[in-house]
Amino acid sequence: MSRHTPLLQQLIDALRILPGVGPKSAQRMAFSLLERNREAGLQLGAALTAAMNKIGHCQQCRTFCETELCHICTDPKRALDGIICVVGSAADQLAIEQTAQFKGRYFVLQGYLSPLDGIGPQDLGLDILGKTLAEGQVTELILATNPTVEGDATAFYIAELCHKRQVKVSRIAQGIPIGGELEFIDGTTLSHAFSGRKVF
Amino acid sequence: MSRHTPLLQQLIDALRILPGVGPKSAQRMAFSLLERNREAGLQLGAALTAAMNKIGHCQQCRTFCETELCHICTDPKRALDGIICVVGSAADQLAIEQTAQFKGRYFVLQGYLSPLDGIGPQDLGLDILGKTLAEGQVTELILATNPTVEGDATAFYIAELCHKRQVKVSRIAQGIPIGGELEFIDGTTLSHAFSGRKVF
Ligand SMILES: [Zn+2]
Ligand SMILES: [Zn+2]
Repeated sequence: MSRHTPLLQQLIDALRILPGVGPKSAQRMAFSLLERNREAGLQLGAALTAAMNKIGHCQQCRTFCETELCHICTDPKRALDGIICVVGSAADQLAIEQTAQFKGRYFVLQGYLSPLDGIGPQDLGLDILGKTLAEGQVTELILATNPTVEGDATAFYIAELCHKRQVKVSRIAQGIPIGGELEFIDGTTLSHAFSGRKVF
Repeated sequence: MSRHTPLLQQLIDALRILPGVGPKSAQRMAFSLLERNREAGLQLGAALTAAMNKIGHCQQCRTFCETELCHICTDPKRALDGIICVVGSAADQLAIEQTAQFKGRYFVLQGYLSPLDGIGPQDLGLDILGKTLAEGQVTELILATNPTVEGDATAFYIAELCHKRQVKVSRIAQGIPIGGELEFIDGTTLSHAFSGRKVF
C-alpha cells in the first residue's frame, strides 16, 4: 500500500481542512475510524452535513444560530441594562459567557474589517449594528475585539458609529496580551479586562 | 451563548471521536468550518460517509480496499519470492511500504489476539492466512507485529500455524523499541529491523 485507495485518499485530504490536522494525523484519524469506529464516522459525517447546511446566524446579534434569534437575544433579562458587547467571533463570545460576568447582549462580527481581503462594514453586519444604535435602547457598547491591527481598525470604526449616535462606548482593558487571540485567554484575565474597561 | 445550539453541540461531540481531539479543539474545528469553510465541511461530511460505507477489506490480505483485491495482491511481481509479511494494521503496512525495501505481499491483521476483548483468530482472519499457508506457495512468513504483549501473543500463534505447515517463519529484528508502536518508527530503523530478522 504505497498509495491509498481513492476513497481513503479523499478522506485523508478532507480531514486536513480541520485546523491543526497535518497529513500524518489525518491518516491516523482515517485509519482509526475505519478500524474501530465506522458508526461514529458515519455520525460525524451526518453531523457535519447537518451543521454546515442548517446552522445560520441570529438576525439580531449574528452569532451561530439554528433559529431566527438566539437564546440570548430572546432573553428579556439580557436587555435590562442596555449594554451590548461587540466580539470578533462566536468563540470569543463563548469565552466571555464562561466568565459569567457579563449580563448584557452581544454583537458577533464574525470577522474584522480587512479592505485587502474585501471585508467591509456590510460583511460584518455593521449596518444592522448601526440600526440597533439608532433605536436608542443601547446605553453602552463594550468593544471586546482582538487587540490586533484588524481588531483595532474595526473597534475605531464602531466607536465612530457610537459617537454619531451619542452612545457611550468603552473597550475592555488591555489586560489582554497585545497580539494575542481572545478565545485562548483564561477567564480571570478576561473578567479583569471587563471590569477595568475604559471610555474609548 | 453559555450553551451551544443542538446541531453545533452535536457536531462538537461527533468531532471528539477523532483521535487526539479534545473538547477545546473540537469546538475550534466546528467554529473554523462554520465561519470560513462550509463547503469543505460538506466535502468532509461526504468523504466520511463514502469511506465508512464503501471501504472494505482485500479478500486476500485484509488491508483496506474498495475492490475485491488490493493493488499489491493483484501485482504478480509481489508474489515472486513467496514472502508474506504479517502486520497489525494498515498504518503499519504503510510504514513498511514507505521503506521500499520489502517486495513481497502482506497479511494485515487489523488488530491483535485479545481474549479479554473477545478478539480471537477468526476475527483477525487467521483462518484465511492458514488456508494461504496450506496452498504451499509461501516460502517465508515475516512477523512484523508490534513488540507488545498482544503483538507477541499473536506472533506466537501465527508461528505455530507456520510450524504446522513447515513454512519458514521469521520476525523483524528487535531494533524496534520495546513497547513502541510500529507505525511511528522511522524508515531507517524499520529497514534495519527487516534485514536483521531472525528465524522465530
Ligand atoms: Zn442573537
Ligand atoms: Zn491484498
